[in-house]
Amino acid sequence: DDRFKIGEQKAKVCMTCHGVNGISSIESYPNLRGQKMAYLITSLKSYQTRERSGGLAVLMQQQADALSEQDISDIAYYYSKLGSEDAN
Amino acid sequence: DDRFKIGEQKAKVCMTCHGVNGISSIESYPNLRGQKMAYLITSLKSYQTRERSGGLAVLMQQQADALSEQDISDIAYYYSKLGSEDAN
Repeated sequence: DDRFKIGEQKAKVCMTCHGVNGISSIESYPNLRGQKMAYLITSLKSYQTRERSGGLAVLMQQQADALSEQDISDIAYYYSKLGSEDAN
Repeated sequence: DDRFKIGEQKAKVCMTCHGVNGISSIESYPNLRGQKMAYLITSLKSYQTRERSGGLAVLMQQQADALSEQDISDIAYYYSKLGSEDAN
Protein backbone atom coordinates (compact mmCIF):
# COMPACT_ATOMS: atom_id res chain seq x y z
CA ASP A 1 0.00 0.00 0.00
CA ASP A 2 1.95 2.99 -1.31
CA ARG A 3 -0.15 5.46 0.59
CA PHE A 4 0.65 3.67 3.86
CA LYS A 5 4.37 3.96 3.09
CA ILE A 6 4.09 7.64 2.15
CA GLY A 7 2.24 8.34 5.40
CA GLU A 8 4.81 6.35 7.35
CA GLN A 9 7.61 8.51 5.97
CA LYS A 10 5.76 11.71 6.81
CA ALA A 11 4.94 10.38 10.30
CA LYS A 12 8.60 9.92 11.25
CA VAL A 13 8.49 13.22 13.16
CA CYS A 14 5.37 12.06 15.05
CA MET A 15 7.05 8.90 16.26
CA THR A 16 9.28 10.74 18.70
CA CYS A 17 6.30 11.34 20.97
CA HIS A 18 3.63 8.95 19.69
CA GLY A 19 5.91 5.91 19.54
CA VAL A 20 7.33 3.93 16.61
CA ASN A 21 4.26 1.67 16.51
CA GLY A 22 1.71 4.34 17.36
CA ILE A 23 1.64 3.50 21.05
CA SER A 24 3.14 6.41 22.94
CA SER A 25 5.52 5.84 25.85
CA ILE A 26 4.44 9.11 27.50
CA GLU A 27 1.22 8.98 29.52
CA SER A 28 -0.07 12.37 28.45
CA TYR A 29 0.51 11.75 24.72
CA PRO A 30 -2.20 9.77 22.93
CA ASN A 31 -1.78 6.47 21.18
CA LEU A 32 -2.53 6.94 17.48
CA ARG A 33 -2.42 3.31 16.36
CA GLY A 34 -5.62 2.38 14.51
CA GLN A 35 -7.27 5.71 15.38
CA LYS A 36 -10.09 6.99 13.13
CA MET A 37 -8.70 8.81 10.06
CA ALA A 38 -11.39 11.52 10.01
CA TYR A 39 -10.83 12.18 13.71
CA LEU A 40 -7.07 12.51 13.23
CA ILE A 41 -7.63 14.98 10.37
CA THR A 42 -10.10 17.03 12.43
CA SER A 43 -7.71 17.05 15.39
CA LEU A 44 -4.67 18.16 13.40
CA LYS A 45 -6.68 20.93 11.75
CA SER A 46 -8.01 22.11 15.11
CA TYR A 47 -4.41 22.60 16.25
CA GLN A 48 -3.79 24.64 13.09
CA THR A 49 -6.88 26.79 13.67
CA ARG A 50 -6.06 27.04 17.39
CA GLU A 51 -9.43 25.53 18.26
CA ARG A 52 -7.23 23.37 20.45
CA SER A 53 -5.16 25.56 22.72
CA GLY A 54 -3.44 25.58 26.10
CA GLY A 55 -1.03 23.16 27.77
CA LEU A 56 0.29 20.42 25.52
CA ALA A 57 -1.85 21.70 22.65
CA VAL A 58 0.74 24.41 22.06
CA LEU A 59 3.34 21.75 21.31
CA MET A 60 1.02 20.13 18.78
CA GLN A 61 0.18 23.47 17.18
CA GLN A 62 3.83 23.84 16.17
CA GLN A 63 3.83 20.34 14.69
CA ALA A 64 0.54 20.80 12.87
CA ASP A 65 1.59 24.18 11.44
CA ALA A 66 4.36 22.42 9.51
CA LEU A 67 1.90 20.11 7.73
CA SER A 68 0.12 20.61 4.44
CA GLU A 69 -3.43 19.37 3.79
CA GLN A 70 -1.91 16.40 1.92
CA ASP A 71 0.53 15.66 4.76
CA ILE A 72 -2.32 15.61 7.26
CA SER A 73 -4.32 13.26 5.08
CA ASP A 74 -1.38 10.89 4.47
CA ILE A 75 -0.34 10.80 8.14
CA ALA A 76 -3.94 10.25 9.27
CA TYR A 77 -4.31 7.44 6.70
CA TYR A 78 -1.09 5.82 7.94
CA TYR A 79 -2.13 5.84 11.61
CA SER A 80 -5.65 4.67 10.85
CA LYS A 81 -4.21 1.62 9.07
CA LEU A 82 -1.40 0.99 11.55
CA GLY A 83 -1.99 -2.39 13.13
CA SER A 84 -4.24 -3.63 10.35
CA GLU A 85 -1.97 -2.92 7.38
CA ASP A 86 -1.42 -6.64 6.79
CA ALA A 87 -5.17 -7.20 6.72
CA ASN A 88 -5.69 -5.36 3.45
CA ASP B 1 -11.13 -4.78 39.20
CA ASP B 2 -13.80 -2.69 40.92
CA ARG B 3 -12.50 0.54 39.47
CA PHE B 4 -12.85 -0.85 35.96
CA LYS B 5 -16.50 -1.71 36.69
CA ILE B 6 -17.21 1.71 38.20
CA GLY B 7 -15.68 3.40 35.16
CA GLU B 8 -17.64 1.11 32.85
CA GLN B 9 -20.91 2.18 34.48
CA LYS B 10 -20.01 5.85 34.20
CA ALA B 11 -18.94 5.37 30.56
CA LYS B 12 -22.36 4.09 29.47
CA VAL B 13 -23.20 7.54 28.12
CA CYS B 14 -19.91 7.60 26.13
CA MET B 15 -20.69 4.34 24.40
CA THR B 16 -23.40 5.86 22.24
CA CYS B 17 -20.75 7.61 20.15
CA HIS B 18 -17.50 5.87 21.11
CA GLY B 19 -18.84 2.33 20.72
CA VAL B 20 -19.61 -0.39 23.26
CA ASN B 21 -16.04 -1.73 23.08
CA GLY B 22 -14.34 1.66 22.71
CA ILE B 23 -14.12 1.46 18.93
CA SER B 24 -16.40 4.12 17.51
CA SER B 25 -18.60 3.39 14.50
CA ILE B 26 -18.49 7.03 13.41
CA GLU B 27 -15.41 8.11 11.45
CA SER B 28 -15.08 11.53 13.07
CA TYR B 29 -15.37 10.18 16.64
CA PRO B 30 -12.18 8.75 18.17
CA ASN B 31 -11.65 5.23 19.35
CA LEU B 32 -10.98 5.29 23.10
CA ARG B 33 -10.07 1.63 23.64
CA GLY B 34 -6.70 1.35 25.38
CA GLN B 35 -6.04 5.10 25.09
CA LYS B 36 -3.63 6.72 27.57
CA MET B 37 -5.39 7.58 30.86
CA ALA B 38 -3.55 10.88 31.40
CA TYR B 39 -4.35 11.93 27.83
CA LEU B 40 -8.04 11.14 28.27
CA ILE B 41 -8.13 13.18 31.49
CA THR B 42 -6.36 16.14 29.83
CA SER B 43 -8.72 15.97 26.87
CA LEU B 44 -11.89 15.87 28.95
CA LYS B 45 -10.69 18.78 31.05
CA SER B 46 -9.81 20.80 27.96
CA TYR B 47 -13.43 20.47 26.84
CA GLN B 48 -14.53 21.73 30.26
CA THR B 49 -12.15 24.70 30.11
CA ARG B 50 -13.09 25.32 26.45
CA GLU B 51 -9.46 24.93 25.43
CA ARG B 52 -11.03 22.63 22.87
CA SER B 53 -13.67 24.50 20.93
CA GLY B 54 -15.38 24.61 17.56
CA GLY B 55 -17.10 21.93 15.47
CA LEU B 56 -17.57 18.59 17.24
CA ALA B 57 -15.80 19.93 20.32
CA VAL B 58 -19.00 21.71 21.28
CA LEU B 59 -20.78 18.36 21.54
CA MET B 60 -18.05 17.04 23.81
CA GLN B 61 -18.11 20.19 25.95
CA GLN B 62 -21.70 19.38 26.92
CA GLN B 63 -20.71 15.83 27.83
CA ALA B 64 -17.63 16.87 29.78
CA ASP B 65 -19.53 19.56 31.70
CA ALA B 66 -21.67 16.82 33.27
CA LEU B 67 -18.64 15.01 34.71
CA SER B 68 -17.00 15.46 38.09
CA GLU B 69 -13.23 15.16 38.59
CA GLN B 70 -13.82 11.62 39.93
CA ASP B 71 -16.03 10.70 36.96
CA ILE B 72 -13.33 11.83 34.55
CA SER B 73 -10.71 9.80 36.38
CA ASP B 74 -12.88 6.66 36.54
CA ILE B 75 -13.94 6.87 32.87
CA ALA B 76 -10.35 7.51 31.76
CA TYR B 77 -9.18 4.54 33.86
CA TYR B 78 -11.84 2.32 32.30
CA TYR B 79 -10.94 3.20 28.71
CA SER B 80 -7.21 2.95 29.36
CA LYS B 81 -7.72 -0.63 30.60
CA LEU B 82 -10.29 -1.61 27.99
CA GLY B 83 -8.83 -4.41 25.92
CA SER B 84 -6.28 -5.41 28.51
CA GLU B 85 -8.60 -5.82 31.51
CA ASP B 86 -8.06 -9.59 31.49
CA ALA B 87 -4.30 -9.10 31.58
CA ASN B 88 -4.24 -7.79 35.15
